Amino acid sequence: MDFLTILGLFAGALTTIAFLPQMFKTWKSKSAKDVSFVMLITFMSGLLLWLVYGIALQALPIILANAISFIFNLIILCLKIRYKAN
Amino acid sequence: MDFLTILGLFAGALTTIAFLPQMFKTWKSKSAKDVSFVMLITFMSGLLLWLVYGIALQALPIILANAISFIFNLIILCLKIRYKAN
Repeated sequence: MDFLTILGLFAGALTTIAFLPQMFKTWKSKSAKDVSFVMLITFMSGLLLWLVYGIALQALPIILANAISFIFNLIILCLKIRYKAN
Repeated sequence: MDFLTILGLFAGALTTIAFLPQMFKTWKSKSAKDVSFVMLITFMSGLLLWLVYGIALQALPIILANAISFIFNLIILCLKIRYKAN
């Protein structure tokens, strides 16, 4: 694995784990009112496009970081919908 | 400009504008207590590494998206420090 891929993987790890607190906070507090629905959808659309971009470039760091970030934000979205219901 | 660059620029625009509401909310409410200091620093370090990665790859979308996101998060960080003081 070359230096650039390691650098990208490290960058991706940092920007991806930054979503964990928001995910846990939403899950623990059973509320997601401070998370804007529109921005969540905007951000997730962007992550999907970055995923396509990463696949096209065959850049593992971009693929991994955006796929995992998408999953984290999908969880936040599902929690937001669930807590909005009750 | 090739399709891939346009795709990357569009992805970057979506994931970058997603920070605007948090920036405005912090500025308007004059409070940043729901923004974790550690996660802000973690995220900004990741953005800087992505910036280096983008420069190394000479990928304009990665450079632009991460540079602008870094500036937005830097503003949130400065607001957080300022509002913490008073």
